[in-house]
Amino acid sequence: LASTISFFTDMVQTIADRGRSLIARPREGLRSARDLADLAEEILSGRGEASAVARARDLLDLYAGAPPETRRAFLKRLALDFGPALGRVEEAIEAYRSDPGPLTARALHEAAEPRRQELLRRLNRAPGGTRALVRMREDVLPFLADHPDLADVDADFAHLFNSWFNRGFLTLKRIDWTSPANVLEKIIAYEAVHAIQGFEDLRRRLAPPDRRLYAFFHSALVEEPLIFVEVALTRDIPGAIRPILAPDHAPLSATEATTAVFYSISNCQKGLAGISFGNFLIKQVVEELRRDLPGLKTFVTLSPVPGFTAWLARERAAETSAFLTFEDRARLDAALDLGTSLDDGAADLQALLRELAATYLVRAKTPGGRPVDPVARFHLGNGARLERIHSRADLSPRAVEQAAGFMVNYLYDLDAIERNHEAFAERGEVVAASDLRRLARAPKTLATA
Amino acid sequence: LASTISFFTDMVQTIADRGRSLIARPREGLRSARDLADLAEEILSGRGEASAVARARDLLDLYAGAPPETRRAFLKRLALDFGPALGRVEEAIEAYRSDPGPLTARALHEAAEPRRQELLRRLNRAPGGTRALVRMREDVLPFLADHPDLADVDADFAHLFNSWFNRGFLTLKRIDWTSPANVLEKIIAYEAVHAIQGFEDLRRRLAPPDRRLYAFFHSALVEEPLIFVEVALTRDIPGAIRPILAPDHAPLSATEATTAVFYSISNCQKGLAGISFGNFLIKQVVEELRRDLPGLKTFVTLSPVPGFTAWLARERAAETSAFLTFEDRARLDAALDLGTSLDDGAADLQALLRELAATYLVRAKTPGGRPVDPVARFHLGNGARLERIHSRADLSPRAVEQAAGFMVNYLYDLDAIERNHEAFAERGEVVAASDLRRLARAPKTLATA
Amino acid sequence: LASTISFFTDMVQTIADRGRSLIARPREGLRSARDLADLAEEILSGRGEASAVARARDLLDLYAGAPPETRRAFLKRLALDFGPALGRVEEAIEAYRSDPGPLTARALHEAAEPRRQELLRRLNRAPGGTRALVRMREDVLPFLADHPDLADVDADFAHLFNSWFNRGFLTLKRIDWTSPANVLEKIIAYEAVHAIQGFEDLRRRLAPPDRRLYAFFHSALVEEPLIFVEVALTRDIPGAIRPILAPDHAPLSATEATTAVFYSISNCQKGLAGISFGNFLIKQVVEELRRDLPGLKTFVTLSPVPGFTAWLARERAAETSAFLTFEDRARLDAALDLGTSLDDGAADLQALLRELAATYLVRAKTPGGRPVDPVARFHLGNGARLERIHSRADLSPRAVEQAAGFMVNYLYDLDAIERNHEAFAERGEVVAASDLRRLARAPKTLATA
Amino acid sequence: LASTISFFTDMVQTIADRGRSLIARPREGLRSARDLADLAEEILSGRGEASAVARARDLLDLYAGAPPETRRAFLKRLALDFGPALGRVEEAIEAYRSDPGPLTARALHEAAEPRRQELLRRLNRAPGGTRALVRMREDVLPFLADHPDLADVDADFAHLFNSWFNRGFLTLKRIDWTSPANVLEKIIAYEAVHAIQGFEDLRRRLAPPDRRLYAFFHSALVEEPLIFVEVALTRDIPGAIRPILAPDHAPLSATEATTAVFYSISNCQKGLAGISFGNFLIKQVVEELRRDLPGLKTFVTLSPVPGFTAWLARERAAETSAFLTFEDRARLDAALDLGTSLDDGAADLQALLRELAATYLVRAKTPGGRPVDPVARFHLGNGARLERIHSRADLSPRAVEQAAGFMVNYLYDLDAIERNHEAFAERGEVVAASDLRRLARAPKTLATA
Repeated sequence: LASTISFFTDMVQTIADRGRSLIARPREGLRSARDLADLAEEILSGRGEASAVARARDLLDLYAGAPPETRRAFLKRLALDFGPALGRVEEAIEAYRSDPGPLTARALHEAAEPRRQELLRRLNRAPGGTRALVRMREDVLPFLADHPDLADVDADFAHLFNSWFNRGFLTLKRIDWTSPANVLEKIIAYEAVHAIQGFEDLRRRLAPPDRRLYAFFHSALVEEPLIFVEVALTRDIPGAIRPILAPDHAPLSATEATTAVFYSISNCQKGLAGISFGNFLIKQVVEELRRDLPGLKTFVTLSPVPGFTAWLARERAAETSAFLTFEDRARLDAALDLGTSLDDGAADLQALLRELAATYLVRAKTPGGRPVDPVARFHLGNGARLERIHSRADLSPRAVEQAAGFMVNYLYDLDAIERNHEAFAERGEVVAASDLRRLARAPKTLATA
Repeated sequence: LASTISFFTDMVQTIADRGRSLIARPREGLRSARDLADLAEEILSGRGEASAVARARDLLDLYAGAPPETRRAFLKRLALDFGPALGRVEEAIEAYRSDPGPLTARALHEAAEPRRQELLRRLNRAPGGTRALVRMREDVLPFLADHPDLADVDADFAHLFNSWFNRGFLTLKRIDWTSPANVLEKIIAYEAVHAIQGFEDLRRRLAPPDRRLYAFFHSALVEEPLIFVEVALTRDIPGAIRPILAPDHAPLSATEATTAVFYSISNCQKGLAGISFGNFLIKQVVEELRRDLPGLKTFVTLSPVPGFTAWLARERAAETSAFLTFEDRARLDAALDLGTSLDDGAADLQALLRELAATYLVRAKTPGGRPVDPVARFHLGNGARLERIHSRADLSPRAVEQAAGFMVNYLYDLDAIERNHEAFAERGEVVAASDLRRLARAPKTLATA
Repeated sequence: LASTISFFTDMVQTIADRGRSLIARPREGLRSARDLADLAEEILSGRGEASAVARARDLLDLYAGAPPETRRAFLKRLALDFGPALGRVEEAIEAYRSDPGPLTARALHEAAEPRRQELLRRLNRAPGGTRALVRMREDVLPFLADHPDLADVDADFAHLFNSWFNRGFLTLKRIDWTSPANVLEKIIAYEAVHAIQGFEDLRRRLAPPDRRLYAFFHSALVEEPLIFVEVALTRDIPGAIRPILAPDHAPLSATEATTAVFYSISNCQKGLAGISFGNFLIKQVVEELRRDLPGLKTFVTLSPVPGFTAWLARERAAETSAFLTFEDRARLDAALDLGTSLDDGAADLQALLRELAATYLVRAKTPGGRPVDPVARFHLGNGARLERIHSRADLSPRAVEQAAGFMVNYLYDLDAIERNHEAFAERGEVVAASDLRRLARAPKTLATA
Repeated sequence: LASTISFFTDMVQTIADRGRSLIARPREGLRSARDLADLAEEILSGRGEASAVARARDLLDLYAGAPPETRRAFLKRLALDFGPALGRVEEAIEAYRSDPGPLTARALHEAAEPRRQELLRRLNRAPGGTRALVRMREDVLPFLADHPDLADVDADFAHLFNSWFNRGFLTLKRIDWTSPANVLEKIIAYEAVHAIQGFEDLRRRLAPPDRRLYAFFHSALVEEPLIFVEVALTRDIPGAIRPILAPDHAPLSATEATTAVFYSISNCQKGLAGISFGNFLIKQVVEELRRDLPGLKTFVTLSPVPGFTAWLARERAAETSAFLTFEDRARLDAALDLGTSLDDGAADLQALLRELAATYLVRAKTPGGRPVDPVARFHLGNGARLERIHSRADLSPRAVEQAAGFMVNYLYDLDAIERNHEAFAERGEVVAASDLRRLARAPKTLATA
């Protein structure tokens, strides 16, 4: 047969998996959440092990084809009926108490394991099972807020996904303009930071010699990137996003570049929320780039500051602020809005905001003592250093609204990563360039509304 | 660069993983089991998360390079020091008792989890981690008999491997004479049933049009088959192994074949002992073959009977036997040895042994009520049917010694697999062809030595 | 290194070819057509054979970078200075005359070979040589009309390309939505019949289960299709293009289809004009489809009739027409234009045009006795049969202008192809369905303007 | 379907070629050389173009299945009946004479082309055609000596193969221990210099980090190397083959190596004899290695001296020798045979032979003025320099017999290659290290037997 000009050739054998579907025909007439739950019990029972894969496929197919209310009802059943067998837990506690030690602890561990976990493991054996389970968790997440009992279901998904999507099972691949269209359309769909307007726009991010895109893949989610990062190769640390995305940018030869700029990181699978591989991604891409292009000396991000204006609004609205003086409040109130700072001639306001942005990034902490800004948390947690703050760096409506146009660079210095990370993880220290640390205001009780 | 004529091209990115090794240099001077255990504690501590992958690689490299006694000492430390934190277990029991329910049960589950499991998950993130952990369990297994406390360590390996080598993460591949030499040499090394004498011998099992070989692979163990099955395509159910392995067999065109004979199944990874994928393998290969070659109607094994003579010896040695008459004993004693049955003219002895072999396969049970013969357990557990018994079927020294030259066919009839499996799993019934069932003697108290 | 998610992995070694460029550095300061011609002489001289590849690369690079007038001047030099060495021809004639036979004929053959051919063969050794030569012929073709002496150059290109692009060296590949973007963008660019409006539009021709696209590739033009055909799988022979291209068409399962419709064939490389592989393409795709989808019974085209209105205009303008009656002329003159036929209520005019379209396809011949319609020549020459004519089948401006909206089906019946081809090739017979043959008017001297 | 673990995935479409075989069924009952010749005429006639591919396949299949005498008879027919049409040649000469110029010269060129060439081009369109034609030429070559009229047939094969196997159509691939067994077994079979004793022996030449093997491939001869070179990475220029082939050699890390030693070059396809790609191969491999391993500074061969003893025997047997003194003759006669030189204590004889070996390589010329030694011709023609001569360097029976145990190094210095080549090609100069040039005797009339 003519070979298809496709890729993942090696993984085409997933087609083979369809074969398993022939072993036992799907059962007819199953439709309700109760049917699904009965199937789940049957799969767990161990009866009919020979056809357990077929039953798992049935359950996943039925679930995928069911209307939202049936799905939710089934997820509810998962929450209520597939937890640990409490009777067994009691027995295991008794046994442990009478002879505490590794063996009775293991029995206790096993007795207390929600039955769901084994169910999910068995469902995963079906062809396409991993993908179906990731989709199922996509259904769980939006449901969580209103149905706290689903938190327990979600915890089981998260536990197994953390094991299955262990970094040791991921492979890094470069994506470029010779990559398959069906993968590229996912990149377009999943880009979460600086939207891509179709294939022509994507081409500009892939084809020039000074652009790179890397993604993590998992063998069970063929053709589905898990997370990806976009990189621009430059000669300087950039202070704004526009030149990078400009359609008419004059490309640099890759060997002339000295700086790799990570300007966008996007997670692709909602169902894998909270399963972290982002920290591994950047570090491995740094390694890749260093090996390919020995001329690269500097590795930085160009990152958004998504929580800045919201934090500032909270500070302004609060009766007392540790960071805002009475005078600041007056100047901020006098400006029509923070967007005013982007006007020519608003240099004063710009300078104030810059000082407050530094303060926000360096000082503003959650009750748990971690940076308020989620992007800062991510990069600082990776061991990066807050390096520069740029005003008027992103003038898209969202960036203006969330960050008054500010962007920042986080620097990945491989020699310092471990030290930075420890300072951050153990002492809560925000590692930042010294001028930014100076710019950031120390907290005081400054003002009363 | 010139492309290497290799395969698994898509997985070459594991080379990329070497990159991660650059992030943090291995620590010098670590050598003892204590050093290894300290590293393990550091990895678990969460401190230095940024370099946790590098620490994991260090531990695995040190372990791989350590002498056997250091390794064993480290495995001992794993057993003793990395179980569950019993203090936390106590607290969790208290919490559960005061408010039994899913949340406190989960806390209990987590508290009772041996710390080893998280350690193994973190070690797996290192480049080549999965492979190194499979090798580590290879060290655990032979150590178990003398060190029962390692059973606990083994149980953790087994738990994680069962999750990681879930059938949903395996891919079936056909191996043939165009497969890479480094994979083929593993087939030669791992063949456990009918030994392969080098590449020329292997060629005879791969190149002819009436031969097939399929294996399961896992993306983290590139180029390492997990288990494989060898298949001969024939026009009849074969009654002996020699014609199949004969160097001068006249090959059949694949489309003329009516019968697929599974004549050898071998596990490849000692470290994955007990992680079952064999049952999935045969069924999927049946599906593959059915799709490729619609002319195939019959799917059978040609299997050894490895426990027959040992069982017979036990029966003969026992004071009473439920299956041997006094007369049998006399006839068996009169033969010089069971190999005598292979002589021309020993038809009587042969007939007796045939009857006893049927009895062994159909009636002989372990204390737990399962067939004594391990190969029978495997195929019957898969839902196959014991179909035929052949004398003088394998005259290799091992087969003569273990089975007096007998071999058997198990039939895989996809329509009956589920029913057969249930009969076997639920009622302990050995599903066998009616003539074999008749041939097998019902147990009585027959004889006294 | 991270593997790029690309394809043609096996051909990545063309990168290796870049290596050869290091052997000898390009010469500086060469710029004019004279320099190019001098290089050509040097390459032919055999001096510096060790660096002949480097010299060939130099010439091709210089040519590629030269302005159009330099290129044309060089092509002129090729025409004038790189023909056969006429002195050698004379000598070879003498030798032949004095001893006519195979050896002297061979000497004559070689003496009369234009020196250009050997030059082109040597240029082809350079990295990317084949591609560069195909591009060079692209320059020759538009130049031919005004410079008839270039016909000789063109003949040499054509001779070598016919040998190099021999069907035995082409490989058929299926292109689908998993194919690389850089190949797909070429499909978009090269589609010559029914234009593709970007990737989204292309997706509709590739992704649905009832669509196929096949192309021929050559190993020296990696990622460059040579010719491709688009196929729709249907349950009926279609009578119009719109339903096939409709964005909202409800796709059919491939296994339900009975009919494969070749609705667009496009050549991709201008530089390979006249090097025919189209006839091989359709037949091989028919074979592919038959094997993949045994349910397919009918293989037809849905083809344009590009010369119809032009022919009709010539007939109407001619003093006498063998096919138009006086009455016809009047009716045609009465219609505002042929597009009027597309109006509702213009059934009469439509019927007349239909009759004339059949006449055009079946009867209208070039002075050489071949069908006037180029598409008809192609398919009839392939052994297809003219099967149906459809009015209002393509309402795009071009189709209305060239064919008054008509399209036709040519039927590929493998059992009849050879017979049809012979009837066409040897007796000039247009093989057509009997109703169409009846519909076509026999030529008479009918009318005088 | 389960993907086969094979390679050349991209070329699997050759399977597709089988499809074409379905178009027209092979004709029954054709068997004789006359039938083959009739088929050939039919293919050339242009009748039945639609089925010409099927006819070509028929001819090639019939030929492949025919007994040797039928094949030879057919080749004879090719020689006698498929030369140029002499009548057309005469006409073309007339036309040329009456109007000499490019157009009439082209007509002459075409008329004088043996009809065989077009036949071979058409045969090549059949599936597997190229391979079949290479095999056909294998039949021609041994036949040439006794049937000089076949030289004409051979010349046509050679002409087309030179065009089809143009360096621009070849791809360089590295072969290693992960390459497919069916390719490796060809390496074993084709190694012509230092025989490989099966897969285990081959493994020693492929698997260690200081070994490389590169081959040229052509897309129409999938899985068939055309020529390959074996490379050892070392720290010194080696003076003997045994340490390189020693089973227990301690491998060097590739990055520590400074020297790449080409110790074996083998052509693989007898049917491509005389189609030279060897010179391209070494140079490109040098480039590959330089890029991969920047530590490599020296590129040399370790080569046999296959014509040495035969030349020496001729000199000794000749009445007069330009190189041997009377004294030399006496000393050589006194030794039992040249192998005696390998004895300990035969230092004098060894020194004499060394001097004569240098003389042989530097001075001994064919009547055409080229070195007598074919290996010397090859490397010197490539622009390499004769660098060192080693006695007792290869003690295998063949090397002792042909070269009295001598081997030599040719040095590939990329900066000097072009200069060396020109000195050799234009002035017949053997470029050699100065000590070797001094060692070589100047020719005189020295001795009379």
